[in-house]
Amino acid sequence: MTAALKLATPKGYTALNPDTVKDYLAALPEIAKKLGGKLAEWQSREVGDGNLNLVFIIKGKDGSVCVKQALPYVRLVGESWPLPLSRAHFEHLALEAEATFAPAYVPASYHYDEAMALTVMEYLSPHIILRKGLIRGIKYPNVAKHLGEFLALTLFHTSDLHLSAEEKKKQIAVFAANTAMCKISEDLIFDEPYFEAPMNRHTPGLEDIAKSFRADAVLKTAAQEMKWRFMNATEALIHGDLHTGSVMVTETDTRAIDPEFAFYGPMGFDVGAVIANLLLAYFAQSGHAEKHGARNAYASWILEQIVVLWEIFAATFTKLWKERDAAHPGGDVYAPRLYGGESGNAINPAIRARLEAIWNDTLGFAALKMIRRILGLAHVEDMEAIPDVSLRVACERKALTFARKLLVEHKAYGTPQVLAQKAMAS
Amino acid sequence: MTAALKLATPKGYTALNPDTVKDYLAALPEIAKKLGGKLAEWQSREVGDGNLNLVFIIKGKDGSVCVKQALPYVRLVGESWPLPLSRAHFEHLALEAEATFAPAYVPASYHYDEAMALTVMEYLSPHIILRKGLIRGIKYPNVAKHLGEFLALTLFHTSDLHLSAEEKKKQIAVFAANTAMCKISEDLIFDEPYFEAPMNRHTPGLEDIAKSFRADAVLKTAAQEMKWRFMNATEALIHGDLHTGSVMVTETDTRAIDPEFAFYGPMGFDVGAVIANLLLAYFAQSGHAEKHGARNAYASWILEQIVVLWEIFAATFTKLWKERDAAHPGGDVYAPRLYGGESGNAINPAIRARLEAIWNDTLGFAALKMIRRILGLAHVEDMEAIPDVSLRVACERKALTFARKLLVEHKAYGTPQVLAQKAMAS
Repeated sequence: MTAALKLATPKGYTALNPDTVKDYLAALPEIAKKLGGKLAEWQSREVGDGNLNLVFIIKGKDGSVCVKQALPYVRLVGESWPLPLSRAHFEHLALEAEATFAPAYVPASYHYDEAMALTVMEYLSPHIILRKGLIRGIKYPNVAKHLGEFLALTLFHTSDLHLSAEEKKKQIAVFAANTAMCKISEDLIFDEPYFEAPMNRHTPGLEDIAKSFRADAVLKTAAQEMKWRFMNATEALIHGDLHTGSVMVTETDTRAIDPEFAFYGPMGFDVGAVIANLLLAYFAQSGHAEKHGARNAYASWILEQIVVLWEIFAATFTKLWKERDAAHPGGDVYAPRLYGGESGNAINPAIRARLEAIWNDTLGFAALKMIRRILGLAHVEDMEAIPDVSLRVACERKALTFARKLLVEHKAYGTPQVLAQKAMAS
Repeated sequence: MTAALKLATPKGYTALNPDTVKDYLAALPEIAKKLGGKLAEWQSREVGDGNLNLVFIIKGKDGSVCVKQALPYVRLVGESWPLPLSRAHFEHLALEAEATFAPAYVPASYHYDEAMALTVMEYLSPHIILRKGLIRGIKYPNVAKHLGEFLALTLFHTSDLHLSAEEKKKQIAVFAANTAMCKISEDLIFDEPYFEAPMNRHTPGLEDIAKSFRADAVLKTAAQEMKWRFMNATEALIHGDLHTGSVMVTETDTRAIDPEFAFYGPMGFDVGAVIANLLLAYFAQSGHAEKHGARNAYASWILEQIVVLWEIFAATFTKLWKERDAAHPGGDVYAPRLYGGESGNAINPAIRARLEAIWNDTLGFAALKMIRRILGLAHVEDMEAIPDVSLRVACERKALTFARKLLVEHKAYGTPQVLAQKAMAS
């Protein structure tokens, strides 16, 4: 990682290591002050466990910061898979937008360096990755509420419900350049699990279902219909990768991180990402049970969080929408001037229909995200951490079977309650 | 029109007149050669009867050309409504794309001048505007086939079915800058007929229905749902204003002109534009009948053209899609690699579902385009040319009633045959 890169990088870019990152920060007076004391006393370590980037935690006498730097390739695969550093730029823009509309739910940004493809941001402590908490069986009483609010605040305010048509089209054009990151999602989520892609992998014992999915024309066409939505629905600035590994939590605090896949896409993609990963956590629980049945109550709690998440999302989205009036008309669609200057009750059917459309997308994207994490390239720790392979296969098979049904029969899953019941019964 | 403009225009821009346009063309050797003879012999006249631009026809000894120049304001309204000259740029780009994929159905471009916001193009003769032909009761045996092919060729090839994701996103970004033209559609089609917009007008005698539409929450919410689609569905490079006044015809030839509203939008918007204007022509026929019933057969012929148009569109779109294979994979969605390298029969349900989605959009957009032409700012000659006001009111009322039903009950109009039957019965 700290060896010289073979890939060409722009002038001014050097991949940092735990030592050089300290020199870099020492040259930024405000950051140095935040850390306090002398450089020699600072502790630095690289902690990136994601698939793409370098992440450093630097602790000083008075404070700590986190440094995230993009590498010019996919870390999970190596330099053979180059990936543009520009993703740091889009992450920076997305973080700014999220901080504008949902400041409580993202880390504070202290410094952005375009050439170095690097952001210095708040070190979140004692937060842990939500996924790890779910594997350990920890209940976070606020996480579903917080994520529901984060989703509603960011998606509403970057849509035509809030932005003018002119501003929205400008933003669509800006984020349309995040092509390389979109392409990863397009390939890995919608295509690769459905043909013999070289990088696919799965737990031994899933050969039959993997094969049947690759031969399943109904399933793959449903996947492509969702891909069409992904590529053709510029509804809002979406995070683009909001799985439970992109959420850091404590009992009281929740932060969404890593929006480098951000672009103008369908709202349901973000909501579906959270729900897919909660469902994966749910289906993995029996694999983590200390003894048979020991995780049943916790598994139910996870499903309840899906219901809470959606209900908070829908309520917050509705509230924001109904606050629009002649004095604060918001964006150019469903304009208050059409509804007597006030949203009033006349707007309720419109809100219901829009939420129903988001829910439908949510189900489709959630199903596809479950499948790609079991049959595609990038897997999730929820399943990977189940040591007993036959138990893991059982959990994964259940999740796959559920996801397939969810995708092709999504109209039978009209509410999060029904979704939770069907997961429970599966 | 030839008076000095009050609006600021970029350096290098001068609005031409029938004299100065000759000087302009004389300085272009290839065009001068095409016209032939001497400038003094050239005949020039301004013929623009649209809402936005100057259009000149220049005839020389050997040939003729057409010059279209954008004005920095909406011609229909005047300098009080400025409109960016950049629309000539987008029209130029759209004409290029259309000429690439459907060369038989657009005028040839000879010269584009960015600073002058001007294109010199083929003078189409003996073509007339399709709308005028429909008012006169002339049958064009090929127009529905040609327009169906034009729609399929342009929409398919600018979608993710043909373009790579990277190229498509680039194009989305380019055309996202055509904001001002999109905004005209957004306001005039989806909003203004549904509140007391200052520029609305309608034939005296329609007060009751105009008022009821403005109070109709179901109707206006359905309109806003289609507006959401218009603003959030980057499916293909659409013409954006494909009414029967944007189509020039002879018995054997058909050309789509004036794509200055082009941007990446929903495919059904273009298909819906043609169908809306055929329906308006249909509902206007009794107003043009030389004696009672004299236009009945012709009116039926118009409805048949809707069926032919859709069937040719669907067949051509399907054919293009099924030609994709491992050797010519086309774009990044529904990729042949997912279907065994050949599209084969496995792809048929996908094609059917996509066409069904386009048809649903088509109906919604068609209905809204009918309504805006009767209750909004810009009307159509089909209705305006009916001299007997009470007859015109009757035709317009029938069209409005049909359009409202079409919009809010579009699921009952599953095929173009059903649409035609319901129009006939209304």
